Amino acid sequence: MCRWLAYSGTPIQLDELLYKPRYSLIDQSQHARMGVETTNGDGFGVGWYADGTSEPVLFRGVGPAWGDVNLREIAGAVSSPLFLAHIRASTGTPVQQTNCHPFRYGSWLWVHNGAIRSFALLKRDLMLAIDPGLYPSVAGSTDSEVMFHLALTFGLRDDPVAAVERMVGFVESVGRRHEVPAAVQMTVSTTDGDRVWAFRYSSERRSRTLYFSTAVSALHELYPENATLRRLSDETRIIVSEPLGELVGAWQPVPESSYGVVQKGADILGDFHPRLP
Amino acid sequence: MCRWLAYSGTPIQLDELLYKPRYSLIDQSQHARMGVETTNGDGFGVGWYADGTSEPVLFRGVGPAWGDVNLREIAGAVSSPLFLAHIRASTGTPVQQTNCHPFRYGSWLWVHNGAIRSFALLKRDLMLAIDPGLYPSVAGSTDSEVMFHLALTFGLRDDPVAAVERMVGFVESVGRRHEVPAAVQMTVSTTDGDRVWAFRYSSERRSRTLYFSTAVSALHELYPENATLRRLSDETRIIVSEPLGELVGAWQPVPESSYGVVQKGADILGDFHPRLP
Amino acid sequence: MCRWLAYSGTPIQLDELLYKPRYSLIDQSQHARMGVETTNGDGFGVGWYADGTSEPVLFRGVGPAWGDVNLREIAGAVSSPLFLAHIRASTGTPVQQTNCHPFRYGSWLWVHNGAIRSFALLKRDLMLAIDPGLYPSVAGSTDSEVMFHLALTFGLRDDPVAAVERMVGFVESVGRRHEVPAAVQMTVSTTDGDRVWAFRYSSERRSRTLYFSTAVSALHELYPENATLRRLSDETRIIVSEPLGELVGAWQPVPESSYGVVQKGADILGDFHPRLP
Amino acid sequence: MCRWLAYSGTPIQLDELLYKPRYSLIDQSQHARMGVETTNGDGFGVGWYADGTSEPVLFRGVGPAWGDVNLREIAGAVSSPLFLAHIRASTGTPVQQTNCHPFRYGSWLWVHNGAIRSFALLKRDLMLAIDPGLYPSVAGSTDSEVMFHLALTFGLRDDPVAAVERMVGFVESVGRRHEVPAAVQMTVSTTDGDRVWAFRYSSERRSRTLYFSTAVSALHELYPENATLRRLSDETRIIVSEPLGELVGAWQPVPESSYGVVQKGADILGDFHPRLP
Repeated sequence: MCRWLAYSGTPIQLDELLYKPRYSLIDQSQHARMGVETTNGDGFGVGWYADGTSEPVLFRGVGPAWGDVNLREIAGAVSSPLFLAHIRASTGTPVQQTNCHPFRYGSWLWVHNGAIRSFALLKRDLMLAIDPGLYPSVAGSTDSEVMFHLALTFGLRDDPVAAVERMVGFVESVGRRHEVPAAVQMTVSTTDGDRVWAFRYSSERRSRTLYFSTAVSALHELYPENATLRRLSDETRIIVSEPLGELVGAWQPVPESSYGVVQKGADILGDFHPRLP
Repeated sequence: MCRWLAYSGTPIQLDELLYKPRYSLIDQSQHARMGVETTNGDGFGVGWYADGTSEPVLFRGVGPAWGDVNLREIAGAVSSPLFLAHIRASTGTPVQQTNCHPFRYGSWLWVHNGAIRSFALLKRDLMLAIDPGLYPSVAGSTDSEVMFHLALTFGLRDDPVAAVERMVGFVESVGRRHEVPAAVQMTVSTTDGDRVWAFRYSSERRSRTLYFSTAVSALHELYPENATLRRLSDETRIIVSEPLGELVGAWQPVPESSYGVVQKGADILGDFHPRLP
Repeated sequence: MCRWLAYSGTPIQLDELLYKPRYSLIDQSQHARMGVETTNGDGFGVGWYADGTSEPVLFRGVGPAWGDVNLREIAGAVSSPLFLAHIRASTGTPVQQTNCHPFRYGSWLWVHNGAIRSFALLKRDLMLAIDPGLYPSVAGSTDSEVMFHLALTFGLRDDPVAAVERMVGFVESVGRRHEVPAAVQMTVSTTDGDRVWAFRYSSERRSRTLYFSTAVSALHELYPENATLRRLSDETRIIVSEPLGELVGAWQPVPESSYGVVQKGADILGDFHPRLP
Repeated sequence: MCRWLAYSGTPIQLDELLYKPRYSLIDQSQHARMGVETTNGDGFGVGWYADGTSEPVLFRGVGPAWGDVNLREIAGAVSSPLFLAHIRASTGTPVQQTNCHPFRYGSWLWVHNGAIRSFALLKRDLMLAIDPGLYPSVAGSTDSEVMFHLALTFGLRDDPVAAVERMVGFVESVGRRHEVPAAVQMTVSTTDGDRVWAFRYSSERRSRTLYFSTAVSALHELYPENATLRRLSDETRIIVSEPLGELVGAWQPVPESSYGVVQKGADILGDFHPRLP
C-alpha cells in the first residue's frame, strides 16, 4: 500500500503540495486515512521535469518521508510544471532505493499503488516477457517496476492506454496460468513530461482510491477569495491517492476501472479494459 | 513519544519479546495503541548482557524497526537474561544513531519515553551541570541522553533512585528558571546488568503508560497449561510501555509518580519524589 | 573488486580477525594493498554459524565497514567456529543490502570477489537458467548472487566442486554466445556450516589473489611463543583475499585455477576445470 | 581530513565541478592525492544559492559521495553562481547528517578541513563560549560546527576575517589552558551568498593544502581555444583543497597563514593572525 500524487499545470514549488496542505503527501506518510495501512514509511521519491528539458530528475530515499531533511530542502528549492511523488509501504520487497518510485525510463516516469498478487510466484514469467533490450534497465525487485517494463514492452511510448491495458491483461493471464485469481491491484500514473496518464483498476473491481482535482475554473467560482487558486492556470490538474485537504467540491473520485489523461486542451476520462497483448 | 521494554529473568531469545507476541515491540513500531503517536519509526535499539560479562552489547539503527533485516537476524540469534529495547518517535531531534536508545555508559544502559519540554531552551544549562568528566561521552543531541548523564552526575551508580529524583528535580528547577512549567515527562528504565530500575513520572502528573508483568508464580496458577510461562523462572519480570498481549491478569500498571526495582529476592515498588541535587 | 575472509576452526570472537590483525579485513576496507581498488566501501557482511545450529546468521550493511558501529559491537560479542566475511567495492550494481555478501540459501553461504564481464548483457540468459524453484530467492541484482543460484541449480548441495565448475563453464558459454570473451573473474568461498570450499579462477587465467593459512602445527613450530597460535586447534584454517599480517610463512597463495576444501581430516587442494552443465 | 570546494562566478551546473574534471571532488572521495587519507567516504554535502534568494539550499548525505545516486541527480539539475561542496573523512566524530558540511546559519555557509586537536577534552569550554542565543543551533557533534558557531559569536556576520582570527585565537588559548599545544589545523571557507572567504592556517604552521584558480582573463590568454574557459566571466573563481585538473598555470597555492576574499571587483589576499577575542 502506497500513496502517490501527480501534478501538471502552473509551475509551483514542490513543497506546496508535498508539505503545506492539511493532508499533504508527507502527512500521509504517517497518517494515511484511506489506505490499507496508515503508515507509508518504507521510502519515497519525487520525479520532476524542469521547463524545457525532456529528462526528468529523480530524488528517492529509503527512510520515511516525514523525517527526510534533504527532501524538505529540495521540495523548498525546486519549482516544476509537472511532477510525480510517491511514498511507499512495502508489500514484501526490500526497502532499498531501487525499489522506490517513481521509476524512470528515458523521459518517462511511473508510480504505482497496489500489488501483483503472489508476485514471487509469477515474477519469472513476467520478467521473461520483458523486451530483452529493456531487461537490463530493471534495477530493483518490485512488482511495480516489472509492470512499468511490461507496459514499455507493450507500447507505452506509442499508445499508453493500450499498453497498460495489455500489461494488465498479460499479468492476469499469467496469474490464471499459476492459479492466482485477481492478480492485479493498481492505481498507476505515468507521464512523458508532456501528458499525464492515470489508471484505476483491480482484477476484483475493488480498486484503491484515486481522486482528481476539479477544474480550476469551477473552483474559482466556488472560492473567489482563495489566493492559491488564483495563481493556478485553468489547465492545472492534480491526481492523488487521497484528497490533500477538505475543500468541499475540490476532489472527484476516479471511477472504478477507468483511466484519465491530463493534457493541453480537454482532459480525457475513459473506461479501462484489460486485453491480451 | 517512544515505546520501550525491559526484560530480566530466565535467558530467552530476543525475538520472543521483540517479534512474537501479538502486540510485540516491533508491532508497536507501526501500530502503538496507547501512545501519543501510532508510529514509532525514527530508529530503534536493543542493549543486552551476555551471561558472565559486565559490558552490554548495543545494536541500534536509524530506520523503522519493522523493516530492519539485521534486527530480525540478531533477535533470532541472541539469548540474554537481561535486555532493554526501544523504538523511537522523535520529538524534534535528528534521526541518527547517536540519538537512538539505549544509551550506554560503562555497564549501564538507559531508555526513555517522553520529553523535556522546551529542551532547546534549557539544553545549555542542563549540559553545563553534567560532570565535566562525563561531558565528552554525550554523543548525540537528545534530551534523553542529557537526562542519563545528569543522573550519572547525581550518583546513578551509587543510589539510582535518589539520582533520578535529583535529576528530575534539577530539570524542573532549570525549567522554572526559564519559565517552562512542568518540564519533565518520562518513563525511564536503567540497569547495571544486575538490577533493573523503572520510573514513571511527569511534572504535571499525567505520565505516559507503563506496565510490569505479574509475578510468574501467580501467572502459573492462572494459566497452568501455558508452555511459555512454564519455562520462565519466578524471578522473571518484564516492564513495558504497553502490554505485549491480551493475557488477562498478566500486566499491572505502574502507578503515577512511582518507581520499581527488579532484583534478586523481592522486587520493590516505591513513590517517586523529585528533589533538588 | 572486493575482499573476503573465511574462517573454520577453534571458535573465536569475530573481531579477532575482522579488527585486530595489522591488515585486518576492516583495515582492507580503506587500505587494500593487493586489489584493483584500495577502497572497499560499498557495503559489507558477515555470516556465522553458532555451535549446534544449521542456519547461519547474517549481518550486512550498506555503508563502509570501517565506520559501522554495529559491526564493531557484533564482532566483539559473537564467537563462532565458522564464518565468512566480505567487504564490497561495487562493479556497477547498486549499493544496497540485498547486494551485500554473504548470500545465504538454507544452511549455505556464498562470498565472491570479481565479476562477470558485461553482466548487464548476459544477465537475462543467466537468470533464465536458474531453477524456477530457486528463482524467487534471488533478492538483489549482483552477478555474485546469480553465480550462487546457478551453482545451486547445478548441484552445489550435492557436489560443490562440480557445481561451481558447471556454473563457470555455463557462464563462459553464455559469454561466448554474446561475444563476451573471458567472462569470469572470481575468487569464491562457500560453506554448508561443516566444510568450507574456496575457488580461485578467471577465464583469462589472471585471477585475483587468494591465500590460505599454513597448518597451525607448522606455525607452532615456527613461533613457539605466539599465544594466539597456541589457542588454535590444528584443524583451524583461514582463507583470505590478502594476508592479514606479516608473519613470515603464515600464508600460502592458492594456485591459479584451483580449489580448496577445509574439512575434518586432511584438507584438499585440487585443480579447477570449468565444464558445461 | 576532508576535501572541499568553493565556487563563485558565472552560474554553472554543479556537476561541471563535482563530477566532470579529471580530479573532480567526487573523484577525490576515493582517490585524494594530497590528503592525509586517500579516502573521504564519511559523508558529503553541497550548499548552493539560487539566483535572487538569500537562503542557501543544503543537500547532505552520510554515505560515500562516489556512490550517491541522489547527489548525481541533483548535481546534474542545479545551476548556481555560488556554492560550497565538501567530502568528509571523519576524525573521530560519528558519521551522521548533522556532522556533514556545509553547516548553515541563516544565509551563511561554512566548510572545514582539519581538526581541533584533543577536541573531546576542549569541547565543553568551547561550547560554553558560544553565544547562548546561538547554542541551540549546534545540531551535530563536530569540531567544525563548533568553530563556525564560535566565529558567529565573535562577529562573523560583521567582520569575517576578524571573527575567524578571534575564533582561532580563542581555541588556541583554550588549548593552552588544557596543555594542548598547536590546537588548530584548518582550511575553511565561509560565505554569505555574496562574498566568499577562505582561510588557510594551522597552529604549527603546517597547514593542509589549499588552491585558488588563476584569474580567468589570464587563463584565456594561456588557453585561447578552451571552450569551458570562454563561458566563464572574469570574476569567476574556484578555491579547492587540491587542484581539479592538470591545466598548467591554472591553480595557485594559498600561502601558509593567509586568507582570501572573492568578491565583486578585486579579490583580496591577506595575512592571517590569530587574536584573542
